[in-house]
Amino acid sequence: MSDHHTYKKLELVGSSKISIEDAIQNAISECSKSIKNLDWFEVVETRGHIVNGQVGHFQVTLKIGFRIESS
Amino acid sequence: MSDHHTYKKLELVGSSKISIEDAIQNAISECSKSIKNLDWFEVVETRGHIVNGQVGHFQVTLKIGFRIESS
Amino acid sequence: MSDHHTYKKLELVGSSKISIEDAIQNAISECSKSIKNLDWFEVVETRGHIVNGQVGHFQVTLKIGFRIESS
Amino acid sequence: MSDHHTYKKLELVGSSKISIEDAIQNAISECSKSIKNLDWFEVVETRGHIVNGQVGHFQVTLKIGFRIESS
Amino acid sequence: MSDHHTYKKLELVGSSKISIEDAIQNAISECSKSIKNLDWFEVVETRGHIVNGQVGHFQVTLKIGFRIESS
Amino acid sequence: MSDHHTYKKLELVGSSKISIEDAIQNAISECSKSIKNLDWFEVVETRGHIVNGQVGHFQVTLKIGFRIESS
Amino acid sequence: MSDHHTYKKLELVGSSKISIEDAIQNAISECSKSIKNLDWFEVVETRGHIVNGQVGHFQVTLKIGFRIESS
Amino acid sequence: MSDHHTYKKLELVGSSKISIEDAIQNAISECSKSIKNLDWFEVVETRGHIVNGQVGHFQVTLKIGFRIESS
Amino acid sequence: MSDHHTYKKLELVGSSKISIEDAIQNAISECSKSIKNLDWFEVVETRGHIVNGQVGHFQVTLKIGFRIESS
Amino acid sequence: MSDHHTYKKLELVGSSKISIEDAIQNAISECSKSIKNLDWFEVVETRGHIVNGQVGHFQVTLKIGFRIESS
Amino acid sequence: MSDHHTYKKLELVGSSKISIEDAIQNAISECSKSIKNLDWFEVVETRGHIVNGQVGHFQVTLKIGFRIESS
Amino acid sequence: MSDHHTYKKLELVGSSKISIEDAIQNAISECSKSIKNLDWFEVVETRGHIVNGQVGHFQVTLKIGFRIESS
Repeated sequence: MSDHHTYKKLELVGSSKISIEDAIQNAISECSKSIKNLDWFEVVETRGHIVNGQVGHFQVTLKIGFRIESS
Repeated sequence: MSDHHTYKKLELVGSSKISIEDAIQNAISECSKSIKNLDWFEVVETRGHIVNGQVGHFQVTLKIGFRIESS
Repeated sequence: MSDHHTYKKLELVGSSKISIEDAIQNAISECSKSIKNLDWFEVVETRGHIVNGQVGHFQVTLKIGFRIESS
Repeated sequence: MSDHHTYKKLELVGSSKISIEDAIQNAISECSKSIKNLDWFEVVETRGHIVNGQVGHFQVTLKIGFRIESS
Repeated sequence: MSDHHTYKKLELVGSSKISIEDAIQNAISECSKSIKNLDWFEVVETRGHIVNGQVGHFQVTLKIGFRIESS
Repeated sequence: MSDHHTYKKLELVGSSKISIEDAIQNAISECSKSIKNLDWFEVVETRGHIVNGQVGHFQVTLKIGFRIESS
Repeated sequence: MSDHHTYKKLELVGSSKISIEDAIQNAISECSKSIKNLDWFEVVETRGHIVNGQVGHFQVTLKIGFRIESS
Repeated sequence: MSDHHTYKKLELVGSSKISIEDAIQNAISECSKSIKNLDWFEVVETRGHIVNGQVGHFQVTLKIGFRIESS
Repeated sequence: MSDHHTYKKLELVGSSKISIEDAIQNAISECSKSIKNLDWFEVVETRGHIVNGQVGHFQVTLKIGFRIESS
Repeated sequence: MSDHHTYKKLELVGSSKISIEDAIQNAISECSKSIKNLDWFEVVETRGHIVNGQVGHFQVTLKIGFRIESS
Repeated sequence: MSDHHTYKKLELVGSSKISIEDAIQNAISECSKSIKNLDWFEVVETRGHIVNGQVGHFQVTLKIGFRIESS
Repeated sequence: MSDHHTYKKLELVGSSKISIEDAIQNAISECSKSIKNLDWFEVVETRGHIVNGQVGHFQVTLKIGFRIESS
């Protein structure tokens, strides 16, 4: 068995009408549909659009890291 | 009619005793008193002051973008 | 009496299962066990780990500033 | 007469279907409708949106500097 | 129907002998061969190589964002 | 009375033949002609031009923050 | 034949008990199992975890670039 | 005797009504009350607060480095 | 023959009334008057000055890399 | 038992005549003399001084993170 | 006569026992011994070393720009 | 004798098939052929190219500082 692992990082943008945390969770949920064993995330940018003077959606860019299975 | 628009970005600091999201909304609400058609925001910095070992206010610096009406 | 103060900044990582705000508060609470008169904080980085496709913990790196008492 | 001047910088986003240079010029043209004596610009970010696999608009964020007249 | 979407960002380097805009378009054209509904791009870096004292190719690193279809 | 305030930040460039501190003060003085209750400043960049091998003017870009009165 | 190419960049984290160079090589080796013609790498971040006061693993985040074959 | 040393860096904010240099010196003076053999400093940020349209205090964040004595 | 080379990078600012690409080429042309075998360039900053509400010159700061001949 | 931990980060500069890895290890070794349970490190900067055209010492600035025991 | 110029930027570190401004001037004075027509400078970093709890020298890294004469 | 010195910084890229440290040393060795009294280096970027799934060369961009002799 190898004594080291290799990880890959993907960059996603999650969105939510509710909160920054919810936007993060939405991106992770979407990502875990196709990739197992997600390990960690890093927030890269927080922004959003505005509708009628209210936050419409929070949009959070994050990197999601996971171990490459064969490694 | 022009086939392009020009946007302006303002830098504000919203604050809230409750949450980061609320501080963002407070800055947007204040800004929309004088400017219509706010379009998007970008979080630049998140900080706050501390009172008796508790977060006193969250202070979120954000840029708010809107289309210049004549453009 | 001096007409100026000197401040020190520490770098901590607070974590929480609940929210970014709670992770910030947890770091401040821990820090205020040993240091009085904490003044302000600045968020440096927001990340977290993922368990079974859900955010396990939010991990927020922040700097906490306080006045050096003798200054 | 003062031996120094003060300048102000505004942040705008110009757009164009044609080129980055045209997006810059569009922002400057819009800005000069209301402010005289624009002096310089600095490109902050270049991005755009995509329509049917083609660049729809180039969107260039720039800062525009001008001397405050009374200074 | 979900009230939020998730987006993915890819990082590509487009090149062109002609212009920065053409290098951007080349990367987008290549990317749209395999991915539909590309939404936006962000320029990350502009560089190039030099041949006989002339720009050989412009090389533009950009991030391309698109909505994950199932989201 | 609201329990929170909103602040606005402007970006200016002050100049001075004498010193960096004087360039900062000149920008603040100019800004306070039209805006009351300036609260804080942040230095963004320090540069200048050179005349005959001597500093001609120090040019200091700074952001100036103030509370929006109605907030 | 086209007179230009398009490249893609992936972000990986290689690890090694031995050295930074070995961590880089491990990420490249893993990546080349599935992608041919890797061209270049760029180190983004170097970190690691500590076990009993010794470096446990070096963890090197790097971007790996390769030409898209059809381009 | 070891052929290498280890250094530690602290982050402080010095302030002064007079000048940036004086704010730097004030932070160093405060720091040297408790730590001997301070070696170097690096300015991280320069800001200040404004009182009645005048600089109230310059506030300079700096890192101060010193050799760990046992090293 | 050595199995490695060393490169040097110079920082120049090219300008042009026409385009960003032309400003880049002008800097490279000037640089190649005195240095042979220029290899690559990296754009560091794009700015310009404004004359009568029109871009006067594009000013592009770039680094130019070349192999040191003896290496 | 608490369901969250708080971590502290220190900034050190390790040095070595041999390698970057050795400089990292030297800083960690020195740090672990006074603090138990060091968890991770992040390289912030790599530099060194030169003696007679040879690297004298590698100097690596790193942040070292550890869990606050009471947390 | 050409309608455009090319500029070169050098990176220097000036030092002074007195002030940041004096360190800047010292670097410019040294540079103008060998190069005529220096045009502008940009401060990149401010640091210094400490002797007996006092600032020993301010060390200011700056870029100095000048027009290439033939351009 | 002057009580201050001025330093110059050059930007080079060293390469090596062996290691990052060797690439640094190669750049310093090349630089010291023409300049005496090199003082220090700062690593700016680490990258490399890949040949057959192996690191071909490490390429390390570094700044090298030295005192201007007349200063």
